[in-house]
Amino acid sequence: MAIVRQTLIYDGPGGPFEGVIAYEDEVETLRPGVLVLPNVLGQKEADNVHAENLAKLGYVGLACDVYGQGKRTTHASPNRTEYMDALNADRALLRDRLAASLAALRGFDRVDPNKLAAIGFCFGGKCVLDMARSGLPILGGVSFHGVYDRPDYENVAPIVAKLLVCHGWEDPIGPPEKTVALAQELAGSGADWQLHAYGKAGHAFTDLDRKVSTVPGVVYEPRADRRSWQAMTNFLEEVFG
Amino acid sequence: MAIVRQTLIYDGPGGPFEGVIAYEDEVETLRPGVLVLPNVLGQKEADNVHAENLAKLGYVGLACDVYGQGKRTTHASPNRTEYMDALNADRALLRDRLAASLAALRGFDRVDPNKLAAIGFCFGGKCVLDMARSGLPILGGVSFHGVYDRPDYENVAPIVAKLLVCHGWEDPIGPPEKTVALAQELAGSGADWQLHAYGKAGHAFTDLDRKVSTVPGVVYEPRADRRSWQAMTNFLEEVFG
Repeated sequence: MAIVRQTLIYDGPGGPFEGVIAYEDEVETLRPGVLVLPNVLGQKEADNVHAENLAKLGYVGLACDVYGQGKRTTHASPNRTEYMDALNADRALLRDRLAASLAALRGFDRVDPNKLAAIGFCFGGKCVLDMARSGLPILGGVSFHGVYDRPDYENVAPIVAKLLVCHGWEDPIGPPEKTVALAQELAGSGADWQLHAYGKAGHAFTDLDRKVSTVPGVVYEPRADRRSWQAMTNFLEEVFG
Repeated sequence: MAIVRQTLIYDGPGGPFEGVIAYEDEVETLRPGVLVLPNVLGQKEADNVHAENLAKLGYVGLACDVYGQGKRTTHASPNRTEYMDALNADRALLRDRLAASLAALRGFDRVDPNKLAAIGFCFGGKCVLDMARSGLPILGGVSFHGVYDRPDYENVAPIVAKLLVCHGWEDPIGPPEKTVALAQELAGSGADWQLHAYGKAGHAFTDLDRKVSTVPGVVYEPRADRRSWQAMTNFLEEVFG
């Protein structure tokens, strides 16, 4: 049994988009599909690795693209947030690109179209929340050190997707008042949700590119990384079970 | 392999105390020991079942007693909170009785005295937090729908025990401000802590005696019960690992 990676190019508003899909090559039954939503930089090797790790759990993982083919930045880019900023300014467009990415995963011939979920990191955590808020057909979503501000459109009522929010308590982007506001939003939405707060962890606690902190409160934290991945593993077993 | 239950009578301030210890009878190596701290009613069958379930996980579980032999109430008792009230009014005495219960577990001949932890429910969750706050030698503690007010003595600095706080977001005893205050306390303590908040769950979400709610926000909730037990299982594996 080996994990295969394959480039997937797909359409959508502002596309084409380019992601990487990963799966176990010898599995013949349809598998649940899990979208991987990247952070501010866009789809990159770290997301492909997440997709591979999801494949090892028995799923098809798609490290997807909401910026557009070739539109990527690095932490060294002069305008590292430019693609994210554009979508933060147009949450309806973000929603439609998320829908396009989900449709690409759903249409992949190894994926069970009735068993879809999404995970995301930082801005990608916001993407997961927006998928749930806008009623895209995922059974579950996991936000890792996400961003919690609401979109300018109304949430579906109720939110049907189960949600797991993995949060670093020291996250400067998610201070207690914003974290409580998210919890109150979800409590008012009818959603089945959980929030796991990790002490001694801040923003980017899963990000191996952040082993050395250059911004206070933004750093890799191995315990929260391991614990949140385990929580995600349990959660996906539950939602696909 | 069978699970054995055994009555354990032990000394301490205000004792004697009487609990029930559970273990797998054919295991010959020393096993980690886990204290089960009961809710307001004191040690009862539900706590014995928790101790048995811990034994099934490979531990020695002690459903312990901090009220004193024969001092128990039921939900129908006219003074159902009297023993709890007395200890809430004397947190130093509570601490010393927790120490006595831990010593009883530690001294049991099937327990590895270097591998101790505690779990607790409602008032028992407060007991777990107080064990960590007062520096009793547990490696880890799990509070299920606990109570978060601080004792009148100073916390040890740092708190060494790892902590997992399993919290129902709709808990009227733990509204957001008290929950955030606990998180801030733990964040300031140097502890390695986590807080898992469960949406759609209130107080007593593990309590099978609360399948029918008689108090708003106080009711059994099967998802949070299952998820928190799984989180505890993972947590204990980690702390004893």
